[in-house]
Amino acid sequence: MAATFRVGLLGHGTVGAAFAELLGDRADAIVPITGLRPEISGVLTRSRGSFEEVLEGADLIVELIGGIEPAREYVLRAMRAGRHVVSANKQLLAAHGEELWACAREHGVQLRFEGAVAGVVPVIRVLQESLAAARVERIHGIVNGTTNYILSEMAARGLTYEDALGQAQALGYAESDPTDDVTGKDAAAKMAILARLAFSTPVHLDQVVYEGIEHLTAEDMEYAKELGLGLKLIGTAERVDGGISVRVHPAFLYAGHPLASVHGPFNAVTVESDAITEVTLSGPGAGGPQTATAVLGDVVSAMIPPASTPETTEALPVVNDIESAFYLHMEVADRPGVLAQVAELLGMQGASIRSVVQKGLGENARLVLILHPLLESRFYAAVRLIGQLDFIRSAPRAIRVIDEEFT
Amino acid sequence: MAATFRVGLLGHGTVGAAFAELLGDRADAIVPITGLRPEISGVLTRSRGSFEEVLEGADLIVELIGGIEPAREYVLRAMRAGRHVVSANKQLLAAHGEELWACAREHGVQLRFEGAVAGVVPVIRVLQESLAAARVERIHGIVNGTTNYILSEMAARGLTYEDALGQAQALGYAESDPTDDVTGKDAAAKMAILARLAFSTPVHLDQVVYEGIEHLTAEDMEYAKELGLGLKLIGTAERVDGGISVRVHPAFLYAGHPLASVHGPFNAVTVESDAITEVTLSGPGAGGPQTATAVLGDVVSAMIPPASTPETTEALPVVNDIESAFYLHMEVADRPGVLAQVAELLGMQGASIRSVVQKGLGENARLVLILHPLLESRFYAAVRLIGQLDFIRSAPRAIRVIDEEFT
Repeated sequence: MAATFRVGLLGHGTVGAAFAELLGDRADAIVPITGLRPEISGVLTRSRGSFEEVLEGADLIVELIGGIEPAREYVLRAMRAGRHVVSANKQLLAAHGEELWACAREHGVQLRFEGAVAGVVPVIRVLQESLAAARVERIHGIVNGTTNYILSEMAARGLTYEDALGQAQALGYAESDPTDDVTGKDAAAKMAILARLAFSTPVHLDQVVYEGIEHLTAEDMEYAKELGLGLKLIGTAERVDGGISVRVHPAFLYAGHPLASVHGPFNAVTVESDAITEVTLSGPGAGGPQTATAVLGDVVSAMIPPASTPETTEALPVVNDIESAFYLHMEVADRPGVLAQVAELLGMQGASIRSVVQKGLGENARLVLILHPLLESRFYAAVRLIGQLDFIRSAPRAIRVIDEEFT
Repeated sequence: MAATFRVGLLGHGTVGAAFAELLGDRADAIVPITGLRPEISGVLTRSRGSFEEVLEGADLIVELIGGIEPAREYVLRAMRAGRHVVSANKQLLAAHGEELWACAREHGVQLRFEGAVAGVVPVIRVLQESLAAARVERIHGIVNGTTNYILSEMAARGLTYEDALGQAQALGYAESDPTDDVTGKDAAAKMAILARLAFSTPVHLDQVVYEGIEHLTAEDMEYAKELGLGLKLIGTAERVDGGISVRVHPAFLYAGHPLASVHGPFNAVTVESDAITEVTLSGPGAGGPQTATAVLGDVVSAMIPPASTPETTEALPVVNDIESAFYLHMEVADRPGVLAQVAELLGMQGASIRSVVQKGLGENARLVLILHPLLESRFYAAVRLIGQLDFIRSAPRAIRVIDEEFT
C-alpha cells in the first residue's frame, strides 16, 4: 500500500472541479510513477473551508482561485510553510512572478505553473527543461483560444467580429465580458511569463505592449486570403539589439508558418533558436479538463524531485521600437498617381513594397500593400503623412505581417 | 566558481561533435540552472580512448555510438557503476529497453533518451512528465524526417519516388543506403519506444508492423490532392480492444489533421487522450545540432534531480488486425457495371464507400475509392476478390487513410 501524498486545493470552479475529478481517476496510475498515492486532503472555496486547515493538512497546495489577492498571499504563505505549490494563475505570475519565484528558491520548494500559459500545451516544461540548453531567440504564440476561435470563424465563414464574438459566447469559448481576451490583455500576461523563462530576465506584465482584435473586419480577412495570408492574434517575445521585445498584436502569417494552420480555440507556441531552428507545440487552449491535466502533470512532477526557477541571470532592456512587416489598407480616390505618391512617402521612410492589390470601387479604389520589414516608428511616420494626402478617403488601416515562410 | 560536472562522451560523429561544441557554448548558461559547470571529461571514438578511462573520469555518460553492441554493454556498465546515461540510440532502446530501464532502476541512476525519437521535438519528456497524469489513447507520429521530405517533394513538385529520393540524398536528408528510413524500420523503432512510454507495457521492435514508402507513386499524390488528402508515413500506437496496436505505414490525412501541414524533413507527434483532446509537437527531425540540443537538455535534467522510467504496469496484448479507412486505386476496363461489382464485393466485407473518383483513359478507366474504417483483414479479403475480377487491368493499390478531421 503506497503512502498518501496530500494535495490541498484552493478554488473549486471549473478547473478546480475538473482537477479533483481527474486526480481521483488517475490516483492508481500515479502510484507506480511516484511511489505515492495523491489525494485531495482539503478544499478551500469562497464559501467554505479555512486556509490554515487546508495548509496544515497538505504536502502540496494547488492554487486555482485566480486573481491577485488572496491568491498571492496564500501562495506565499504555503511556500514559507515549506509546501510545494502548483498554480494556473497567469495574472499573478505575470505581475508578481519574481517575488514568488524568489520565495520558492528561498524555501527550497517548487512552484510549478504549466496550466497558467497554454493549458495542456507543455510550453513551460519545454522551455525550462527540454530547451534549457538552447539559447532561445524568439517565441511566437497563439496563447488565447477565445480570440483564435473568433478569428478562425471570421476567416472561414466571413463573419463580422461582432457575430463571431456572439457565436463564441454562445458556445462557451468567450465569457459574457470578453474584455481581457479580445483586448490582448490575457495573452500579454502569458507572454510576460514566457519571456521571463526564455530569456532569464525579469519581465513584468506592464512591459508588454498589446493590441486586441476588436477593430479587425471581415474585409481584412478577404484581402488576406487573396494574398495567401492568415490572420491571428500573435504574442511575440524576441531578442532585439541586446534587449528584448515582448508584445501581442494581430498579425498576418504566410501559409507555410507553423502557426498559420492553428484554427479554432487552440493554442500553439513556436520556439526558435539557432541550434534547433524551431519547435512548435499546439493543442486545445484552456478548458477545465485540459488545464486540470496540466496541473496534475505538475503535481506528479512535484511529487518526484526538486526543481526550481533559477534566478534571473540577465537584465535585458525591453525594446519597443522594432522592425515589422506590414499590411497597409487604404481607401483612395481612383485617379492617376495615387500609388506613386503613397510609394514615395513610404520610400522616404525606407519602406519597401512586397506586393500590391488595387481594386476600383466606382470613384474610389482600395489599395492594399504588403511591406517588407521596417522599424515600426518609421512605418507609422509614413502612415501619418499618407493619412493627410488629399486623395485618402478614410484612415489607413495597418496590421503587422509575420514575414517568414517555413517550407 | 561552480563545481564541475564531468560528461564522458562515447562517439564523436555528427551528433557527438555537435554535442561537444554545444556543451562548450552553453556551459556558462547551465551554471545558474544546475549550480554546476558541465565539461567533457573524456571522449571514446572508434580509433582512440578507453571506455574504462572515460567511465572512471565521468559523472555522466553520453552514448552517441549507435547500433546495439558495444553501445549496450557500455550503457549497462556505466549504469552499474552508478553513472547517469543519456543516449540517442533508438535501435538499442527499441530492442533492449526493458533490460536497460530495469538496470537504471536497480542502480538508482537516470537513463534519458529524448534524442532517440524525434530530435529536439520533446515528445519523451512530454509523455513521461507533462502527460504523466493523462491516460493516453493514441499517438500518431511523423518520426522520420527523410521519408517526410521525400513525400513532401513528391506532393509539391510531382516528382517520382526515385527522383525525390535522389534529391534527398543530394541534400543530405537521406543516406546513401536509405533502407532503414524508406522501409519504415527506423520509424518502427521510434514507435516501439513511444508505445512503451505511453501505455506502460513492454513493446519490442519485433512487435511493430511496418511498411515503407518505396511503392508510392506520383499518381497516388495526384489523386490524393483531388480528394483533399495529404500522404505521410505515419507511425501509430493506440489502444485497441484491451490491447494495443503499434505500426508504421503510409497513410492519407485530411487537411484539418494537425500532421497534414508538417512538410519537409520535419518530425511531429500528436498525442490523444480523452481529457486533453490532443497535443501536437513538431520541429526539425534528427540533425546534428537538433539532436545535440535534445541530448544536452537531458544532461541538464540529469544534473538536477533523479527521475527514472517506472516499471511496466500493464501487460497489454499487441493487436494486429485493426480498423482502418482505405484509399483503393484500381485500373479497370471502362464498361458498365464495374463500380457495382466492386461495391458489392466491398459491401460483403462490410466496407462502406465514402467517396469515388472515376476517370476514363481510352478503353480503361481509373477508379479511386475512399472507404470508411473497417477491419484490415476484411478489407484485404475484399481486395483479393476484386483483384480476380476480369475487368481489373492491374493489381489494386491500397493505402490507409487517417479518417479524422480536426477543425
